[in-house]
Amino acid sequence: MKGKVYLVGAGPGDPELLTLKALRVLETADAVLHDDLVAPEILRLIPATAQVHNVGKRCGKKNILQDEINFLMVALAESGLRVVRLKSGDPLIFGRAGEEIEALRRANIPHEIVPGVTSALGAAAAAQIPLTHRQASSALVFITAQQASESEAANWSKLAGSGATLVIYMPGQKYTELALKLRAAGLADETPCAVISRATTPHQQTHRSTIGELSRSPKLAAPTLLVVGEVVRFADPLAFAPQFVSPTFSAADGNALPAALFADSQSIAEFGTNEEPLP
Amino acid sequence: MKGKVYLVGAGPGDPELLTLKALRVLETADAVLHDDLVAPEILRLIPATAQVHNVGKRCGKKNILQDEINFLMVALAESGLRVVRLKSGDPLIFGRAGEEIEALRRANIPHEIVPGVTSALGAAAAAQIPLTHRQASSALVFITAQQASESEAANWSKLAGSGATLVIYMPGQKYTELALKLRAAGLADETPCAVISRATTPHQQTHRSTIGELSRSPKLAAPTLLVVGEVVRFADPLAFAPQFVSPTFSAADGNALPAALFADSQSIAEFGTNEEPLP
Repeated sequence: MKGKVYLVGAGPGDPELLTLKALRVLETADAVLHDDLVAPEILRLIPATAQVHNVGKRCGKKNILQDEINFLMVALAESGLRVVRLKSGDPLIFGRAGEEIEALRRANIPHEIVPGVTSALGAAAAAQIPLTHRQASSALVFITAQQASESEAANWSKLAGSGATLVIYMPGQKYTELALKLRAAGLADETPCAVISRATTPHQQTHRSTIGELSRSPKLAAPTLLVVGEVVRFADPLAFAPQFVSPTFSAADGNALPAALFADSQSIAEFGTNEEPLP
Repeated sequence: MKGKVYLVGAGPGDPELLTLKALRVLETADAVLHDDLVAPEILRLIPATAQVHNVGKRCGKKNILQDEINFLMVALAESGLRVVRLKSGDPLIFGRAGEEIEALRRANIPHEIVPGVTSALGAAAAAQIPLTHRQASSALVFITAQQASESEAANWSKLAGSGATLVIYMPGQKYTELALKLRAAGLADETPCAVISRATTPHQQTHRSTIGELSRSPKLAAPTLLVVGEVVRFADPLAFAPQFVSPTFSAADGNALPAALFADSQSIAEFGTNEEPLP
């Protein structure tokens, strides 16, 4: 009998930002294929009896191809297993889920998608940036800094010129290049922006700037997000003070996850201690 | 002693798409101020001892002003209560959270934002639409159909012309007008689109169309979302078949929420039976 594949969003980092459904599916998995960015605290929720494969393209398997991930996922489900394909944030945003879903359909494997809190929403919550605002922005755009073709540059101009809030996923650390690209897209030097690093984890760092000053921003550890637009003016000033600890991380107000969630009862304070390489 | 206000995202509908943190905060609330669209199953998680105020602008309090909501929220927290301001989806997207946060800061009330799964992600998961795709779209735009000024129309042209996937929140039922607006923004008649109604609930309905055919779509019950763009071609054909029951709703695969979550153990099958008026 064929198994089933769940494409599951692990949320932005804080394990308490998993959905109830993601937790249930993870706790009953026979096999888990996860990306590099999924927090170790979340990986500890996987039953000890399950197979765990890090298929992250950064440190897990440097040269793994998308086809190989698809093949492994299908093979495990063909053998009757309940497979969780665990992605940070939400699976349908910048996660190549479309290709994985196609592979599952071709192989006729039952599958289901469990949405998650995408990183932009975790970062915005942590910094208290309203992503839309009646006085500042009536649209919200998610893009990545990865593409750099000419048509892509034209698209950036359109998106930036719309007055929408921009959230740039995987902006990297080449802030000078990024600022040039945003200026080329028509944004003024005074446009406020914020870099948010490792949002909703105890390692969260934030830096508020403007496009004109972005090149002088400190290089914060990946994963980061760049929020650009007038709404950044409404951010919590405290969230950008030095030594700020995110109140959105569960441990901050003395409420750790129920201990029963953690097979080995390791302290939540250890969360996120493995450093991720930069994108 | 002052209380605290939590601005909490209730997710797209399915109570199992609450985050663990939202559940914890809700279960320990002294007072809850919620919008109309929050599912009754989720409201049942509120302790019986808590005050519950429906501050929805549709059926709860037709003429309630944002200032009145802010005032109530501040007053309850000033009296020492742990207050949850519960919004469907994510609080920072189209939820006027910016104004509520300003009011809390002015009154010096401790507050925290708990992000949620925004409706677009719930709808996309249910219909298996990858919101970005390497072959189809490298950007994602969230807008509402509510604004109609000239500058807004110009912004729609820019956003639509970027090739991004568009998700239109609160599209209403004037599909003919909406199609005209999308066409005026430069989108071709052949552009695929999908209306998704009451996503991730047992009442979910979907209709796949094109901009040219949109005016002939059946009027589905609010809340709906309209997804526009080439990525709709990758949707699950089964999700658009008649009589389709969303597999993302928890009860569908035989796994209801733990009964203990529900004070009165009412069946999850009753979920969402209160009809919402149209926006």
